[in-house]
Amino acid sequence: MKIHYECFSCAANQCQRIVEMGTDDPELRKKGVIEAAKLMANINENSVPAVFGSEVFLGVYRAINNDDPFREYKKLSNRLAEKVVKDLEKEGISLKTALKLAIIGNVIDFAVGYSPERIEEDVRAMLNEDLHVDHSEELFEAIKNAETLLYLTDNCGEIYFDRLFIRRIKEEFPHLKIYIAGKEGPIINDATVEDLKNAGFEELGEVISTGTRIVGVPLEGVSEDFKAVFESADVIIAKGQGNFETLSEIKDKRVFYLLKAKCRPIARELGVPHGSMVCLRAR
Amino acid sequence: MKIHYECFSCAANQCQRIVEMGTDDPELRKKGVIEAAKLMANINENSVPAVFGSEVFLGVYRAINNDDPFREYKKLSNRLAEKVVKDLEKEGISLKTALKLAIIGNVIDFAVGYSPERIEEDVRAMLNEDLHVDHSEELFEAIKNAETLLYLTDNCGEIYFDRLFIRRIKEEFPHLKIYIAGKEGPIINDATVEDLKNAGFEELGEVISTGTRIVGVPLEGVSEDFKAVFESADVIIAKGQGNFETLSEIKDKRVFYLLKAKCRPIARELGVPHGSMVCLRAR
Repeated sequence: MKIHYECFSCAANQCQRIVEMGTDDPELRKKGVIEAAKLMANINENSVPAVFGSEVFLGVYRAINNDDPFREYKKLSNRLAEKVVKDLEKEGISLKTALKLAIIGNVIDFAVGYSPERIEEDVRAMLNEDLHVDHSEELFEAIKNAETLLYLTDNCGEIYFDRLFIRRIKEEFPHLKIYIAGKEGPIINDATVEDLKNAGFEELGEVISTGTRIVGVPLEGVSEDFKAVFESADVIIAKGQGNFETLSEIKDKRVFYLLKAKCRPIARELGVPHGSMVCLRAR
Repeated sequence: MKIHYECFSCAANQCQRIVEMGTDDPELRKKGVIEAAKLMANINENSVPAVFGSEVFLGVYRAINNDDPFREYKKLSNRLAEKVVKDLEKEGISLKTALKLAIIGNVIDFAVGYSPERIEEDVRAMLNEDLHVDHSEELFEAIKNAETLLYLTDNCGEIYFDRLFIRRIKEEFPHLKIYIAGKEGPIINDATVEDLKNAGFEELGEVISTGTRIVGVPLEGVSEDFKAVFESADVIIAKGQGNFETLSEIKDKRVFYLLKAKCRPIARELGVPHGSMVCLRAR
C-alpha cells in the first residue's frame, strides 16, 4: 500500500509523540522534530507508510538519543493486557471468539490510563460487534489443511490477545507447526522478539524475528531466515495495519489480515467503513 | 519567536487542512502534502513559526493549484461574525468590553457549523472571563497621548469584532489617525486588504497592506510603505498569534498584543496558562 495524503500529518503527529515520550528536554524534542522534518522530505508518492514512517522514527530516535521511547508505554500495555486476558481465559472461548479477541486487542490503547476493569468492559462490548469482512471460516479451513502457520504480530499489549488466539488454534489443530514473528528491535510500540519471549510465546511455537525494526514485513528489508519461513508457510496471519501496509500489494492467498481499520487510508484501501474490524483473505 | 517542538506537527496538520479545503482530488491532495514535506525540510531552530508555516502553505497552494483554499471558509466566518457583532453593537459597550470582544473574536472558529445564536452565547460567557495579563489601562493611556494608531488584524470573522473595537476607540479618541493593516493576498484565513475594505474599515481609518502574504508582520518581508507606517506609529495593536510570533523579539513598548494563547508554544512564550486571554504590552 502506498501513502495516502493523510499519512504525512499522521507521521508528523507520531514524531511529536515520540519526542514527548522519549525526552523531557525541550531542546532535544526540537532537535528530534527538525530531524523528522529533514527525513520526511524523502517521502514520495510510492512510499509505503509503515516503511517510510519507521525510517523517520528511527532517525528521530537517534536525534534524541533514545533507542526505545515507548519502553514504559509497552511495559504498561503488556501488564494491563495480560491481566485482562487472564480473566477472559477463565471462560470457555470458541476459536471464532478468540479470533475476534485478537482483532480487538489491536484496537485498544492499553496505556492511556484506563483500568483493567474498564478495558474488559470495552472488550466485551466489542465482542458484540460483527466483523465487516469475515473470512474466518476460510482461515480455519486453510489452517486445518496446513502444516505450517506464520503469525505476524503487531503491538505490545495486543500480543496477549494473540497468545490466547494461538493457544486456541494449537488446541484445535495440534499437528500445526507455528512460527510467531516479532520485530528485531524496538520501533514505536511494536512487539519485539524479546517481548514475545517474555510473554511465553515459545511454549506455543517458534518465535522468530522479521530481521528488521521496520514496522510490518517489508519484503526487501526482512532477513533471509525470515523470508524462508514466509515463503514456505502454508497460512499467514497478519495482524494490524503495518503488516497490511507492507504486504497488501503481493496479493497472496495464504495471507489473512486481522485488523481494525483505524485510519481513513486503510479503510479506503480495504473498501470498508472507517473503524471496521475485518478478517480478510488476500486475493 | 522561534519554533517550539510542537510547531512541526501543527504545520503538518494545517497542510492537511489546506489540501482538504483546497481540492477534492485525492491525487492532488497527495501532491500537496508531498510538496509540504519537501518544503518543511527547510525548518531550522531559528525558524519563526508564522513565517516558516506561511512559506510551506503557499507552496502547497501552488502544488494544488488553488490560490485561496480558505475562500468559502472566510466568507462564512465573515457572515456569521458580522451577524453576531450586529447584535452586540445594539448594546452600549464600554471601551474595555470592546477590547475584550476583540480578543474573544480571535478565539472563535466561526465556520465550524455553529449557529449565530450559539456563538453569541459563547461570546457572552467569555466576557465573564478575566484577562490573564491586562495592560488595557496602559493601552488606553498610550492611545490618549498618541497621534497615530496602527492596528494589525488577524483573521476573517474576527475582523468584525476588531471593527467594533476600533469604532469605540474612534468615538473615545476622535483626534486619532488610525491605520488598519491586512495581508497583501490570501493566506489561510487571515484578513486581506480586500476583506477589510469589504467590511467597511475605510470608514474608520486608512486601510493598508503589510505588503506580504506571510502571516503576521515579518519585518524583513513587509513593504517599504508598511514599514514607514510601522516605524512612525505611536501605538500598535497586534492581534493574534501570527503578529506576536513575528514581533515578539523586537521588544517595542509601542506594541500591545491582544490574543488568546491558543497553543502551548505561545502560552510557554508568554509565560501564561494555555488558553489565557491577554492584553500585553511588549517590553
